[in-house]
Amino acid sequence: MAELRREPIVRQWVVITTDPPKGPSDYLPYKPPYQPQEQRGECPFCSGNEAMTPKETFSIKGEGISWSVRVIPNKCPFFRIEGEFDRRPGGMYDVMGAIGAHEIVVEAPEHHQNLTTMESSQIEKILIAYQERLMDLEKDRRFQQFLILKNYPGIFNRHPHSHILAMPVVPKRIDEEIWGTMDYYQRKERCIFCDIIKEEISVKKRVVLETVHFLIFSPFASRYPFETWIIPKVHSPDFHHITEEQIGDLSMGIQSLFLRMYKLLSDPPYSITFHTSPVQSEFHRPEFHWHIEVRLRIGLREGFEWGTGFFVNPTPPEDAAAYLRGAE
Amino acid sequence: MAELRREPIVRQWVVITTDPPKGPSDYLPYKPPYQPQEQRGECPFCSGNEAMTPKETFSIKGEGISWSVRVIPNKCPFFRIEGEFDRRPGGMYDVMGAIGAHEIVVEAPEHHQNLTTMESSQIEKILIAYQERLMDLEKDRRFQQFLILKNYPGIFNRHPHSHILAMPVVPKRIDEEIWGTMDYYQRKERCIFCDIIKEEISVKKRVVLETVHFLIFSPFASRYPFETWIIPKVHSPDFHHITEEQIGDLSMGIQSLFLRMYKLLSDPPYSITFHTSPVQSEFHRPEFHWHIEVRLRIGLREGFEWGTGFFVNPTPPEDAAAYLRGAE
Repeated sequence: MAELRREPIVRQWVVITTDPPKGPSDYLPYKPPYQPQEQRGECPFCSGNEAMTPKETFSIKGEGISWSVRVIPNKCPFFRIEGEFDRRPGGMYDVMGAIGAHEIVVEAPEHHQNLTTMESSQIEKILIAYQERLMDLEKDRRFQQFLILKNYPGIFNRHPHSHILAMPVVPKRIDEEIWGTMDYYQRKERCIFCDIIKEEISVKKRVVLETVHFLIFSPFASRYPFETWIIPKVHSPDFHHITEEQIGDLSMGIQSLFLRMYKLLSDPPYSITFHTSPVQSEFHRPEFHWHIEVRLRIGLREGFEWGTGFFVNPTPPEDAAAYLRGAE
Repeated sequence: MAELRREPIVRQWVVITTDPPKGPSDYLPYKPPYQPQEQRGECPFCSGNEAMTPKETFSIKGEGISWSVRVIPNKCPFFRIEGEFDRRPGGMYDVMGAIGAHEIVVEAPEHHQNLTTMESSQIEKILIAYQERLMDLEKDRRFQQFLILKNYPGIFNRHPHSHILAMPVVPKRIDEEIWGTMDYYQRKERCIFCDIIKEEISVKKRVVLETVHFLIFSPFASRYPFETWIIPKVHSPDFHHITEEQIGDLSMGIQSLFLRMYKLLSDPPYSITFHTSPVQSEFHRPEFHWHIEVRLRIGLREGFEWGTGFFVNPTPPEDAAAYLRGAE
């Protein structure tokens, strides 16, 4: 079974997966790690191929079709639902079982769709699927943290899909954000994200667009070219407590943002992550402010950033926001 | 001029470079960001083309050639030597000038060399160049942190080269390692790196090789497949206080490691970073233990790691070390 191992210096958890462990031949350039499913015409995410996947945990019916969004357990999960935590020492180190949930949200029945070709009503359904699954998974008291994640294009399958992860520990990046939020709150008795929203709306130059409920902007210290955050204007720690009205509004904001990126950067690859408070009463942080971070996977300078946690970004966020505002 | 901007939540410094700022067209896939120098036969790093680069800051003469290793200022630096810090607020945020040094170490006069084709005596000269430059740069009291970095293959030029950076702030990753080291020291009055070295030598299964002065091993919670650390067995906070004997020993260790990686993974791309204590008496940390981290740029799962600081590694370090031990 996969193990969670804690790096002892920086205290970062790492998942070591072992089913099966990958050796050198799995990485050799002349042997791609996967054969894209679509080339074989056997995509398990396409409608009609439901028997190729595990039984769904949730779905939304469509008009005249059996489903329009479908959630299934991941066949190769980072975290497994069965088993024990078994927290234990491993010599001088810390180890535990990688217990959690890892589900796939199939975002549309059709293979060749993406956030720029979908109706905003379809994006709405995807957001509802996220919300419903998080509501359900929260009942399992072993899970401390949820992560919603989308890689475009998909690495193993290009059918539009995203990941929902339920984790038994709070990952480092979220933990750091919570620490920063709490520290600011102690000094000012205000939410740092709420202050950033006020600053950005007043300064304007880094705003990409504003919807009724959300601000979409290029953060002041953008780590990546065209890094973009989507944040609810009214304080809320938890994505899954979003209202129906906010979901409709957010889906239109997402559609508009990705259309702009598509036009400006010619269908760029991206990753989307939802940052939301840990769950369960003992870990929940009402001071946290949920938000979505969008990173385009372009123009990377890997070694420097990896070695130092020090990012170099050659596109000032003021420029990025201006380009995106203009790309209607 | 480039700016250092501090992300206010996690408090991470980001360099925003602006000479010139990059817009969407700089990232479009059909317009590569650079034309590889070697294709034009005009590599500024090749011997004979010295006039194409700024004046060298250091060089080592070779037998019958004008130089065998040469250090020059980077023409497109992340940090500039001239100017003022000018620490200031930018609205609610923190900004300062990106003051520092950014030099290029040209590792050999010949274009088609790398760590697996060089003699270990050449690697020795590269290490001496690093050391000499750090000794000199340390005299500038504006610099708090050095970083030595190598990307292979080079992104803008494939001539073997590496980067030396002198920075006015301690980057996040190093700061976290120092924090972890100090915390462990307070609890145990021992160096955590020294304890790891003892553990790994006693357990054996994650050791790749041991030289007289260095341990080369796969860390327990390896974040990346085949992640490898090279660490001096005797405690020392600063790379640039390495002895002549250690340099000779280290160069043979490096050569052996990269030959193994070459054989096992068919000339994989990699990044190397040197982690060393901050400099200047007020920032120096004698408790820190310098080391080299090697990351192969293979098998990445970007979105998940970026969103969470949570790494998934499908090659257990025990397997990685065994493969590398066997690849003599």
